[in-house]
Amino acid sequence: MNDGNSRIVWHGRPWQMRAVTERLPNGQTMERAFIDHPGAVVLVPVQQTAVGFNVLMLRQYRAALGETILELPAGTRGWDEKWLTCAQRELREETGFRAASLIYLGEIWPSPGVSNEQMRLYMAAGLEPDPLPADADEEISVQPMPLPELLEMARNGRIHDAKSIIGLWWAAEYFSNQ
Amino acid sequence: MNDGNSRIVWHGRPWQMRAVTERLPNGQTMERAFIDHPGAVVLVPVQQTAVGFNVLMLRQYRAALGETILELPAGTRGWDEKWLTCAQRELREETGFRAASLIYLGEIWPSPGVSNEQMRLYMAAGLEPDPLPADADEEISVQPMPLPELLEMARNGRIHDAKSIIGLWWAAEYFSNQ
Repeated sequence: MNDGNSRIVWHGRPWQMRAVTERLPNGQTMERAFIDHPGAVVLVPVQQTAVGFNVLMLRQYRAALGETILELPAGTRGWDEKWLTCAQRELREETGFRAASLIYLGEIWPSPGVSNEQMRLYMAAGLEPDPLPADADEEISVQPMPLPELLEMARNGRIHDAKSIIGLWWAAEYFSNQ
Repeated sequence: MNDGNSRIVWHGRPWQMRAVTERLPNGQTMERAFIDHPGAVVLVPVQQTAVGFNVLMLRQYRAALGETILELPAGTRGWDEKWLTCAQRELREETGFRAASLIYLGEIWPSPGVSNEQMRLYMAAGLEPDPLPADADEEISVQPMPLPELLEMARNGRIHDAKSIIGLWWAAEYFSNQ
């Protein structure tokens, strides 16, 4: 995306949008827009209970959708920030806990047609209270829920957030392989 | 997103980007950008074989990533297009088949922090050749692969495209409940 025909159309704190003029095989030209994104982390914070594991889910207001949704903690990486540093920071900001261990589950592209965003998913275990101030623009509350119930919600379409569906599935697979 | 403080910063054929100036609880203002998106369909086209089901996957060049990825057929809806009309059109454009039945699997938000895009997922069955011309800006090839192999790739992180991971999981669940 660094050819000579591109221009930045919006530049924000975390990411920017670039418009690129392309010549198509049929000879026409067309402008397309892409998001240049530093990547993000997705966290599956787990706490052992008497009967299994709870996951710390968030209820977060999403201005793009105009509604409050159920999702896993997640956040955008700084351009030069290390992935594990980002994971620990976002966990502390959004849940108030730090993790003794961050277990890599895999990576996903949420919107490869529009953005180069890569999300790295981690299970966060061994949680200890160690909060950081939340971002001023975020409205979130933490809601612990049993993993089996969440897995069923992800499987049958009652959770709509893509990263959360995948994070819950992969976390459940991790435990089933232990 | 239709308050008085927003402006369109880019307007494309399928979607547009809007920047919104928000006043934060701490009194500061901040500009954030969102994609206004008409939604998209994701298709899981299945063909019965002697031993089970194949899924018609795509290998598609994604300019945002700068690479060719493995993913399910999918496409953006026209602003006034009916969802099932969109599903049949995208299936014919991208795979060359029409479906006798489109089975709704569920819906997801791929990027609720940035976009209001909603994706509706359908299994496409009863496939008959009935191609439409592909979009001039798309470079795709169709690759049939066995559903059990794809499910395993989605489960263990060898497929990175979020919509495809979820579509394959939900399709496999559909068959396991039959």
